[in-house]
Amino acid sequence: MRIGIDAMGGDFAPLEAVKGAIAAKQQMPDIVPVLFGQKEKILACFKELSISENELEIVPATEVIEMSEHATKAIAHKKNSSINVAYRYLADEQIQAFIGAGNTGAMLVGSIFSVKAIDGVLRPTIVSLLPKMSGGFGVLLDVGANADCKPEVLNQFAILGSLYAQHVYGIQDPKVALLSIGEEKEKGNLLIQAAYPLLEINDRIHFVGNVEGRDLFNDKADVIVCDGYTGNIVLKLCEQFYYNLSKMGVTNDYLERFNFKQYGGTAILGVNEPVIIGHGISKEETFVSMFKLAKDVVKSRLIEKIKQSF
Amino acid sequence: MRIGIDAMGGDFAPLEAVKGAIAAKQQMPDIVPVLFGQKEKILACFKELSISENELEIVPATEVIEMSEHATKAIAHKKNSSINVAYRYLADEQIQAFIGAGNTGAMLVGSIFSVKAIDGVLRPTIVSLLPKMSGGFGVLLDVGANADCKPEVLNQFAILGSLYAQHVYGIQDPKVALLSIGEEKEKGNLLIQAAYPLLEINDRIHFVGNVEGRDLFNDKADVIVCDGYTGNIVLKLCEQFYYNLSKMGVTNDYLERFNFKQYGGTAILGVNEPVIIGHGISKEETFVSMFKLAKDVVKSRLIEKIKQSF
Repeated sequence: MRIGIDAMGGDFAPLEAVKGAIAAKQQMPDIVPVLFGQKEKILACFKELSISENELEIVPATEVIEMSEHATKAIAHKKNSSINVAYRYLADEQIQAFIGAGNTGAMLVGSIFSVKAIDGVLRPTIVSLLPKMSGGFGVLLDVGANADCKPEVLNQFAILGSLYAQHVYGIQDPKVALLSIGEEKEKGNLLIQAAYPLLEINDRIHFVGNVEGRDLFNDKADVIVCDGYTGNIVLKLCEQFYYNLSKMGVTNDYLERFNFKQYGGTAILGVNEPVIIGHGISKEETFVSMFKLAKDVVKSRLIEKIKQSF
Repeated sequence: MRIGIDAMGGDFAPLEAVKGAIAAKQQMPDIVPVLFGQKEKILACFKELSISENELEIVPATEVIEMSEHATKAIAHKKNSSINVAYRYLADEQIQAFIGAGNTGAMLVGSIFSVKAIDGVLRPTIVSLLPKMSGGFGVLLDVGANADCKPEVLNQFAILGSLYAQHVYGIQDPKVALLSIGEEKEKGNLLIQAAYPLLEINDRIHFVGNVEGRDLFNDKADVIVCDGYTGNIVLKLCEQFYYNLSKMGVTNDYLERFNFKQYGGTAILGVNEPVIIGHGISKEETFVSMFKLAKDVVKSRLIEKIKQSF
């Protein structure tokens, strides 16, 4: 299984991306990492790490999309960026999945421009994991790809999240809920109120109604659906809470499950090929987790399951 | 200063409300608690606590609005409920402030029906405190009174929150931000994008731009503005996170500042009299904090400052 990695993506690229690719190859013999990026810089990392030039495949890409760049403009103009070159490989099926920790918007826009949304999917989405108090993880989506959503888009997120929870995380018959402010059907903002009846009659999901902010870490729902504005605020709040407590030396097994290094990244759901977006501050360990997640997504045949559902 | 309390409000009413009123009177000699509720039940509490019938003033109210009742219907139909009777006293200035831990919606609707919104205020709002890592508190609003907001409503929340931070919490020239997903002006959902230019030219606030979910506990902003759907999710998420960690035995000075008992309740901003809404699970200590907050709001002359600003 050939998995591409944006060697130029992330705050510590290319060195940490290269280290991640090497470690992933060692730990998972069934994957072949393919590095996309500026060849001289990648080779300099090889030298620093004392590995031979032939250790990993490099696909040269002369340009780099910076973290701060406007995603759509960068994807449109930097044709030879590592992200664009990798997406061409992905579209041509020369790699089976693509991971990157660079500009999130560019990773997302690039996926829609190249491998494209699955027929019938209105808006591809990105998900995050919720560490449950009882063990295991839940899925929260959207976490930032779609700041404003229509009710029918939330209804699709419910299906996408449900398939992801089921096929990648092995959660049987995942319970799906809308994130709201009150459990009753009529509670919530106008978006949630309008989405509720759509999810209620959606026979492709196991809808359990509304949950509240206090329910994110309990077992009321395995898949929690909201717009990307709300989901992104929840995600960043949780990450920061974990980080603040770590800095204070407060830690335990449960809190460590908020450490993004362990699960690495977020899948883009609803596009035609597997793509994993990583955190900008990713280091070796996180890139390894991203490779593992990409492999799990490929092996689960998630994309085919999604195609069958739409 | 006469401060009314809904003796029937909260999961442990009337006993804990009565205990809170007694303790508040002992701790703050300048306040006179006035209990609203079913007289026999309140007197039974007096007996249980071995205090005389004349220890605290009771204003009889025969009905009780339950936690689960529809707020507007209950306020409209239960004219002799403790909440409605207390609001009549507040409107008549027979009490200077009102606190209650009962049905939040009824407390809110009751305030708008009785003492009414301040002229010019589009939507009264409820706020929550954010414990800052560096010490002190920030203010988040709205946290649930207004699930859907228009941009001009967020602009008013910015003024209300700013005045509250300044006059009740002594934060000079409070920095005001919009809660968004990206710091740049063009980032966020449509609501935040539309509100940004309004706050930018609002000379009654010190606007510092957008902050993200990760900035809730740092010093980028003292007042963070969002719609009530988002704010309520953030509030309940934080409360639950604190609660989950407490249950695990994880605690420290910082985490203890998330304990709502210490600050007691949330003020309704934008109505003509001081009202404090408490958590349903409030006990004695929390009611004391609510009395203290009500006293602070009265002493700060916050309502007059708000009236002058609108």
